[in-house]
Amino acid sequence: MRQLRYSVAASVDGYIAGPSGEYDWMPIDPDIDFPAMYANVSALVMGRASYEVFLATGGAPGPPLPTYVYSRTLPEGVRDGVTFVRDAGRHIRDLKAERHDKPLWLWGGGRLFSALAQEGLVDGVDVAILPILLGAGLPLLPSPGPQLTLRMRSQRVYPKTGTVFVAYDVVAPEPPTSGARSQR
Amino acid sequence: MRQLRYSVAASVDGYIAGPSGEYDWMPIDPDIDFPAMYANVSALVMGRASYEVFLATGGAPGPPLPTYVYSRTLPEGVRDGVTFVRDAGRHIRDLKAERHDKPLWLWGGGRLFSALAQEGLVDGVDVAILPILLGAGLPLLPSPGPQLTLRMRSQRVYPKTGTVFVAYDVVAPEPPTSGARSQR
Repeated sequence: MRQLRYSVAASVDGYIAGPSGEYDWMPIDPDIDFPAMYANVSALVMGRASYEVFLATGGAPGPPLPTYVYSRTLPEGVRDGVTFVRDAGRHIRDLKAERHDKPLWLWGGGRLFSALAQEGLVDGVDVAILPILLGAGLPLLPSPGPQLTLRMRSQRVYPKTGTVFVAYDVVAPEPPTSGARSQR
Repeated sequence: MRQLRYSVAASVDGYIAGPSGEYDWMPIDPDIDFPAMYANVSALVMGRASYEVFLATGGAPGPPLPTYVYSRTLPEGVRDGVTFVRDAGRHIRDLKAERHDKPLWLWGGGRLFSALAQEGLVDGVDVAILPILLGAGLPLLPSPGPQLTLRMRSQRVYPKTGTVFVAYDVVAPEPPTSGARSQR
């Protein structure tokens, strides 16, 4: 199964963008290797609003990296190197079922993450924690959202900006064992 | 001037407690040296709701560590080793003016932090980032709150639980220089 990892930059108070989607407050650490981040994933998946941010920040969709954008209002189909899809959950299940060493990058945003996490489809959360308290904005995980237990997988500090990157795996709830069930 | 540092544990999505103040979701790393944390501050300051959590989690107010609790409704005065005070801002200014090597620990909560930060009284934010997404709760900084630029001072990873501790200094806005003013 291919992994789906939600990889974002966030403020210490858990916002991934300002109240109107602003991203100009984000310090960009020169030591973060963005080309390597894109080279280490097999496709990009994101919501429609995040796709607009992706384009505005210089993102280039299309080959070699398949880009899937979920929207309930836009027509489905391939345009400008992007595949637009209505039903995110079903499509993500299909993508995850494909054999692939490299994960899918859930580029954003919080609402799509929340919906997919509630379906148990998110395997990892990777956060670059930026040295700022924003006080308001678009949350990493909108409230109310699912509670997810995480397990730290790796971390790295970027001293030039004070960015702290932490990669977490989502801990799946333990299924009840047959032993536990038989004791009822 | 004595420093005032807001030191809390928070989820990755920026909550310091559950929706009803719950703290039972917090993994406590065995390598965090709580006695040393208390030994390295000169007094505890907190809001009334946080004080109840402080007591419920085994906190013992009083000597040798002065404990100040801010409440607009409780009578002022010393009771049970605690000094209750109405006007947090004025009192904190007085405490900060005392010469002391060790900082004041702003133990919580988010509303008191927000109010004091808006008055420019908070010098540091120290966060133990816990490996969980809570999805709802009492925020580290309630929205809308002030935007605060931070500078990383130190960090430490606690691998047993995956807790990432980051100490930040609050960056004061640069005052306009007389040179810049004279150019107008």
